Amino acid sequence: MAGPYRIVGIAGSLRAKSFNRALLEHARKSAPATLAIEIHDLAGVPLFDQDVEAKGYPDAVAKLQAAVGAADGVLIATPEYNSGIPGVLKNALDWMSRPPGKSTSAGKPVAVMGTSPGMGGTLRVQVVMRPVLAGMGMAQMVGADVAVPSATTAFDAEGNLVDERARAAVAKSLDAFAAWIGRLKSV
Amino acid sequence: MAGPYRIVGIAGSLRAKSFNRALLEHARKSAPATLAIEIHDLAGVPLFDQDVEAKGYPDAVAKLQAAVGAADGVLIATPEYNSGIPGVLKNALDWMSRPPGKSTSAGKPVAVMGTSPGMGGTLRVQVVMRPVLAGMGMAQMVGADVAVPSATTAFDAEGNLVDERARAAVAKSLDAFAAWIGRLKSV
Amino acid sequence: MAGPYRIVGIAGSLRAKSFNRALLEHARKSAPATLAIEIHDLAGVPLFDQDVEAKGYPDAVAKLQAAVGAADGVLIATPEYNSGIPGVLKNALDWMSRPPGKSTSAGKPVAVMGTSPGMGGTLRVQVVMRPVLAGMGMAQMVGADVAVPSATTAFDAEGNLVDERARAAVAKSLDAFAAWIGRLKSV
Amino acid sequence: MAGPYRIVGIAGSLRAKSFNRALLEHARKSAPATLAIEIHDLAGVPLFDQDVEAKGYPDAVAKLQAAVGAADGVLIATPEYNSGIPGVLKNALDWMSRPPGKSTSAGKPVAVMGTSPGMGGTLRVQVVMRPVLAGMGMAQMVGADVAVPSATTAFDAEGNLVDERARAAVAKSLDAFAAWIGRLKSV
Repeated sequence: MAGPYRIVGIAGSLRAKSFNRALLEHARKSAPATLAIEIHDLAGVPLFDQDVEAKGYPDAVAKLQAAVGAADGVLIATPEYNSGIPGVLKNALDWMSRPPGKSTSAGKPVAVMGTSPGMGGTLRVQVVMRPVLAGMGMAQMVGADVAVPSATTAFDAEGNLVDERARAAVAKSLDAFAAWIGRLKSV
Repeated sequence: MAGPYRIVGIAGSLRAKSFNRALLEHARKSAPATLAIEIHDLAGVPLFDQDVEAKGYPDAVAKLQAAVGAADGVLIATPEYNSGIPGVLKNALDWMSRPPGKSTSAGKPVAVMGTSPGMGGTLRVQVVMRPVLAGMGMAQMVGADVAVPSATTAFDAEGNLVDERARAAVAKSLDAFAAWIGRLKSV
Repeated sequence: MAGPYRIVGIAGSLRAKSFNRALLEHARKSAPATLAIEIHDLAGVPLFDQDVEAKGYPDAVAKLQAAVGAADGVLIATPEYNSGIPGVLKNALDWMSRPPGKSTSAGKPVAVMGTSPGMGGTLRVQVVMRPVLAGMGMAQMVGADVAVPSATTAFDAEGNLVDERARAAVAKSLDAFAAWIGRLKSV
Repeated sequence: MAGPYRIVGIAGSLRAKSFNRALLEHARKSAPATLAIEIHDLAGVPLFDQDVEAKGYPDAVAKLQAAVGAADGVLIATPEYNSGIPGVLKNALDWMSRPPGKSTSAGKPVAVMGTSPGMGGTLRVQVVMRPVLAGMGMAQMVGADVAVPSATTAFDAEGNLVDERARAAVAKSLDAFAAWIGRLKSV
């Protein structure tokens, strides 16, 4: 292997002190040598509109699509809104799936994490993400997803993930993600 | 009954010539005497951000929330993106679900329609909408949803719904929606 | 009101010491005066087969269909298998949805509960149940579903629900279910 | 490559003249040289019961688990019942996922097909299958699933798939499945 796999990290919340952004930041900082995670901010990505698309992809969209295209995998950390995918994240995924048949995301390995203040830790949205990522043609890792409940105590005031069980789950998941990417790339 | 039920119509696409906007427009024009449908445009509703929310709801959001609150029911016509809810629509639903415990959408009757160029006619997104609308506490009509396939031929060049089978399905669905609202309001 | 609403309770597991059967039993024993819950055992309901159906509904199926038809509502307590509905329960729902257009379950109020040893407490299956119950034309209660995590400590050795938070959630949910049935019956 | 990949085919319906069994049979007969499909009948697989499991897997279950273990991939053809997975199929999947952590299905490549008399062709159940197969740890193919609408005309009276578009979709899907298995096996 010539170096670590390059991973684009995407947080499904725009809030500055978002727990999911903090979870992604923890993943970035604690990543194993096999992964180099770079967080891509969704701020500036406009609402999807085919009339806009017809005139050319807005800068923030083109950058997102290019970042995914240059990466070996995509790591998503997302909250759960109304048992589903936040509109902010789904909107980014809608742009990422374009243009049809020629998107940079099709075939790309992807893993999902999430955290929420409640007991479920985003279990529901992780169910809902499955057919969407499949619809985009992405190659989903299974068996090592991370759902961190009780976010208000799992992170400290500075946004560090301090819950040991959650830290272990993230570590295990990142190793599994590197293995998944390796498995798909070995052809 | 003192008059027709007031319905807020929401299209899940921002495109000017959106088939789903045309479907909603057909519903508006062809509505039975029991329903008065007014279409609420999502243009201007920003991406959800709790930091923004903390400073007060943006105008377009406050108007959407108020329109839902003043209505007897919500009618959604939505395309299907990547087997799921368009980010544009989910983003509007996320705002509509706020603030937690005091939203104007909780308990409100809701019906879903959709059309797509393909054979499914948005069947998949209608499955995905169920838990989201339930998570918002909305009272979903069942048994008379509308999924119009082959949108490019179901509508004429001016955006009129010309497919007879689809027109009949919309008519039946609107009658069922009026009955559903009546059933829930009769207490 | 002439008496309590009659509720058919269905557990999604055949295991004798099933936590979900225990949860349903707790609901039965602790039901408010507005509800009379009778548990209907799924043992004996065969696997769905249209060739069998063509010869007439097996006894256990006919009894299930009749019990639902005679009830004012259906209360389901279900575990979560592989993020989805247990085959045992889905099989019973498949029979309950028959014959098409003339089932006893269409239009019937329904509420869902669940418990699991893990942290999610069946949150995922409750998401997955939404479109299925909608597909059956059932009138789902929203906003007061019950998901009890950590089943091994929430129940004592005799199968009594001892977790106070869970007991309160069940009590609130049963009251909400009586109100939901009343709302739909008031026409 | 030492020979064709061995595929276990599973039909989600017990009906003798099931369209999905016919679809699977068409896949078997028309399989490319890279795939050898053997159909495994679900008849005899009992309803899942942990009390039964505790005494040992029933013969039909042990055979199903062994067949999956010996195969290079699993091909499922399923109808859609109430927008969801048939109980018969979900019940088989529940057994296939056992015992926890040591199932023969975890990690196994899987592809899904389906046909229905209606216009959707099982699009909805294919959405619902995603999180279930992921929950089982199976490696789902994406991008080449098959949904055949209008089953009553897509097949002739002898159960042969005669719709050309559907035949082409099956052929493309089987090639993609062989490629997917090869990609995962190449490590």
